[in-house]
Amino acid sequence: MAAKMWIVKIGGNIIDHSEGLSRFLEHFANLRGNKILVHGGGKIATRTAADLGIEAVLVEGRRITDEAMLRVVTMVYAGLTNKQLVAGLQARGCNAIGLSGADGNTIKAERRPVKEIDYGFVGDLWPGSVDADAIATLVAGGFTPVFSAITHDGRGQLLNTNADTIASALAVALSAKYDTSLVYCFEKRGVLRNIQDDNSVIPEIRAAEFEQLKMSGVIADGMVPKLHNAFQAIARGVSEVCIGHADELCLLRQQQFGTRMIR
Amino acid sequence: MAAKMWIVKIGGNIIDHSEGLSRFLEHFANLRGNKILVHGGGKIATRTAADLGIEAVLVEGRRITDEAMLRVVTMVYAGLTNKQLVAGLQARGCNAIGLSGADGNTIKAERRPVKEIDYGFVGDLWPGSVDADAIATLVAGGFTPVFSAITHDGRGQLLNTNADTIASALAVALSAKYDTSLVYCFEKRGVLRNIQDDNSVIPEIRAAEFEQLKMSGVIADGMVPKLHNAFQAIARGVSEVCIGHADELCLLRQQQFGTRMIR
Repeated sequence: MAAKMWIVKIGGNIIDHSEGLSRFLEHFANLRGNKILVHGGGKIATRTAADLGIEAVLVEGRRITDEAMLRVVTMVYAGLTNKQLVAGLQARGCNAIGLSGADGNTIKAERRPVKEIDYGFVGDLWPGSVDADAIATLVAGGFTPVFSAITHDGRGQLLNTNADTIASALAVALSAKYDTSLVYCFEKRGVLRNIQDDNSVIPEIRAAEFEQLKMSGVIADGMVPKLHNAFQAIARGVSEVCIGHADELCLLRQQQFGTRMIR
Repeated sequence: MAAKMWIVKIGGNIIDHSEGLSRFLEHFANLRGNKILVHGGGKIATRTAADLGIEAVLVEGRRITDEAMLRVVTMVYAGLTNKQLVAGLQARGCNAIGLSGADGNTIKAERRPVKEIDYGFVGDLWPGSVDADAIATLVAGGFTPVFSAITHDGRGQLLNTNADTIASALAVALSAKYDTSLVYCFEKRGVLRNIQDDNSVIPEIRAAEFEQLKMSGVIADGMVPKLHNAFQAIARGVSEVCIGHADELCLLRQQQFGTRMIR
């Protein structure tokens, strides 16, 4: 049987709050089995850009990464946030190693082609983006990779890539080597049957049920693409995708963390 | 016989000039044998701090690293500069992996004790600082470590550490496993017999000759501590310390690079 691999993604909502972050790092450090952390940015990037007099440009709700902004996200994501997370995990006995996709050529991307919108230095992934062998070498060496959302094109250009997409691509690629679970931590306790009731977490959703839940309107708005991507990862070999609140990560191994999506 | 290990340190003078940097990366990527790059900061950190309205505090010519400055150097050294170097090396076929001392717990430091001056978040190294096993694991995995001058104390605190000191500590620790050469790239072609004549490079200095050269005034000023540290590293097991211009790094293997210090 393949060894277990947990790929846990956290977003800005956790990174921006030191108490919640501290709890999360404790939970993550205690998680048994091979594991990888993927982190987004948080407000520090936007704040640092503003402090440097660089304005964030948004087109249709999406951030444009011009050269100045690429420098900022590289500094903040791959520098400050990544190293603070690594140092915090090391302090808790987890042998973290911080990486961008350029490091060890672990994740290669291509700059998004310019159609109607020029997104700037944004990198898209393709099926061969992740070097699973390189990552497995690090894991076998006793290291716990911590990925920031910075990639490269292999020709010297760093690129800004969505952290959710990185987590999913890592999970799909590593499914060839490990029994891989993809875990998204977000601000809710899971997929809720009733959006007003935090205790209405749906414990498990199978691919066949997803369409029904969408049709009946239980799953709506921002949750639709999230779950669509989850079932796509499962179709590509990921064993399960879990989504829930970072504070409950300790319940992951007992299958009591948030909502679990399976084939 | 132990395998060869090159530890090459570059400073801000190379990082700040894109053409020279590009030439250096080409030379470093082509260097055969196991290798590690250690880099300082350059002017980008000072400029970024200034742009953020953070003033650099110097006491007796030494930079004080307060909390705000630690954030800046972590962003710039471990983020921007480190990842740009890694992406540049990857583009040249060198499988670089960017590290701070926190990554893989490779270099642990202790915050400098406060005596007359509080240097802030500056980390000093001690003989056990470098985890040579962790670094050897990465090297055996096919990776070329690229170290920024950021370390940690193992209790969650990042620290700013002198890049020359990191290079020397790495060389001493790795001498237990490899035939290690420590290479400092600086703005001169080597140790000059006549400071006015760039072609008066002294090709080789033995430990016994160092005192004479100091006494006769050939080695003076800033070169004295540099060479003192070099011979200290040699006394602690490093095979040789070379000092010369980055543009001539391609001459390293033919022993024609700058000045070579040996036992």
